[in-house]
Amino acid sequence: MPRKSDSPSERARLKRGHERGDYSKQTIHSILDAMPLCHVSYILDGAPVVTPTFQWREGDHVYWHGSSASRLIRKSTAADVCMAVTILDGMVMARSAMHHSVNYRSVMLFGKADIIDDPEIAAKRLEGMIESLYPGRWDMLRPMTDKELKATTVLSMPINEASAKVRTGQPIDDEEDYALPIWAGVVPVQMSVGAPIDDTRNLPDVVAPPNATDFKIG
Amino acid sequence: MPRKSDSPSERARLKRGHERGDYSKQTIHSILDAMPLCHVSYILDGAPVVTPTFQWREGDHVYWHGSSASRLIRKSTAADVCMAVTILDGMVMARSAMHHSVNYRSVMLFGKADIIDDPEIAAKRLEGMIESLYPGRWDMLRPMTDKELKATTVLSMPINEASAKVRTGQPIDDEEDYALPIWAGVVPVQMSVGAPIDDTRNLPDVVAPPNATDFKIG
Repeated sequence: MPRKSDSPSERARLKRGHERGDYSKQTIHSILDAMPLCHVSYILDGAPVVTPTFQWREGDHVYWHGSSASRLIRKSTAADVCMAVTILDGMVMARSAMHHSVNYRSVMLFGKADIIDDPEIAAKRLEGMIESLYPGRWDMLRPMTDKELKATTVLSMPINEASAKVRTGQPIDDEEDYALPIWAGVVPVQMSVGAPIDDTRNLPDVVAPPNATDFKIG
Repeated sequence: MPRKSDSPSERARLKRGHERGDYSKQTIHSILDAMPLCHVSYILDGAPVVTPTFQWREGDHVYWHGSSASRLIRKSTAADVCMAVTILDGMVMARSAMHHSVNYRSVMLFGKADIIDDPEIAAKRLEGMIESLYPGRWDMLRPMTDKELKATTVLSMPINEASAKVRTGQPIDDEEDYALPIWAGVVPVQMSVGAPIDDTRNLPDVVAPPNATDFKIG
């Protein structure tokens, strides 16, 4: 197969999204807000690296964090990164192998990551992380120390080069294949959340708060 | 904060894994086999790109596929890629923000992707994909056509630069924080699978087969 050289437009095309692309800010935000698990890709020593981490959104920025001791985190300042957030919603089973697919919601973000240098702002963003996952929890916790704050690096990226893709619904088979006696349909999948498991060292009479019992993801 | 330049050993360190690293082939295989959803990272026009796709494993290789029309797929031959597979198992809620964490199983694979050029081998691998997701389904389907096979590119990568990380169990708090009346524990999360939804165009009397009703993921 002949290989065409890649044009700069290829990355631009990815940013735009394609057949299943959806560019509304509302869709992008709703996917980011539903799924904190993300995969962030960097170039390290000339080769790609992708690592799972958690993102959270405030306004038109996403944030993630890591250990200040991590060179991978530290070298992220002004570096190109790509972040993907993917929610699997269903297995789409068609009448031919070709048309098997999945239902999903996904976002790709492109940009340059910046480290938040101001410790007060970084602390506010970490509060935002905890609150986005567990509303009301920040004030329940033993306060963060300066040492802990120094050990944590918060990264930010504007959500201005973003695309969302969403697939929903039934398989789309070749028209003639609908006459075949082959089962087709969708097997729904979702993240489910179990009842909180108490730490064995909890003090007596300490019970799981609503931000644990009502936790939702996906 | 002073920024040290990254040494080549940084990528090597990632490959080895670190504090939560687990190098057993059995662990790596079990994570890959449990979660087909993966994120593959490439360099495109000098910048990182990460895209979600499905992987499947046969022996000591992982495979994934895409449209032959995709330049992103075509340019993957002999290109450095990094693949991450991540399974979220629980939200770990500690007595301080710092010690909040997640329980998870993850694998990172590094290597060079190769396109499977032999159409018979590519077809066999696509059969492997369908069978790994839905045992027994390949023989139930309308057979794949040569045109469909040509439209599909199968990529392979040996599993020889791989690391797994696994976290399980309760939060680990600072010793003095165990005296605080703050609830701590784990909120379990997992992928759950619903009952198959029949395609509205299924023929009468066609019922969901076991590979749909018994589907499992995660």
